[in-house]
Amino acid sequence: MIKVTVLYPNGPGKTFDMSYYLASHMPMVKQRIGAALKGMAVDEGLGGVEPGAPPPYLAIGHLFFESLDAFKLAFATHGVPIVADVPNYTNSQPVIQVNEVRL
Amino acid sequence: MIKVTVLYPNGPGKTFDMSYYLASHMPMVKQRIGAALKGMAVDEGLGGVEPGAPPPYLAIGHLFFESLDAFKLAFATHGVPIVADVPNYTNSQPVIQVNEVRL
Repeated sequence: MIKVTVLYPNGPGKTFDMSYYLASHMPMVKQRIGAALKGMAVDEGLGGVEPGAPPPYLAIGHLFFESLDAFKLAFATHGVPIVADVPNYTNSQPVIQVNEVRL
Repeated sequence: MIKVTVLYPNGPGKTFDMSYYLASHMPMVKQRIGAALKGMAVDEGLGGVEPGAPPPYLAIGHLFFESLDAFKLAFATHGVPIVADVPNYTNSQPVIQVNEVRL
């Protein structure tokens, strides 16, 4: 299983609208990608490991695909409108990583 | 639900022994924390979103807890031996983030 992880870095002046992300962005992603999307997950950064430390990332989104090819096809087909929606909920430039799920 | 995400940054000379991590480190974490640990997940970085780009993180581990207090207690009780095992599988300094699972 492939997990595409989208990390939104925290920093001075960085904002993230979790309500929009959950209610509008992620449902749009799901609707566009359709059956190739095997699952999704959303994490909201609360903090670092030290008490009072800010979270390195404001939010982390995860998209699951059966294979690398399935992800590549979905991104090639639907990437443009999905990426175009990002400024509607954050001014943070996302870091994207493609993972293989090992456990 | 609380998800503690441990990210191992990639970089020149950085190494990560996934076999040791899966076969020894994560089982040790599970055994030590016990019932307070509600789940775990491991991702292996394959690449960035651009073809041929390296993954920002060599690996990402996730630990699930029912509450922030449950995590804090587990980390206070078992953190030292868990952290002490890190050099046995990587020379990457992990970035740790505490998340609330939103989806």
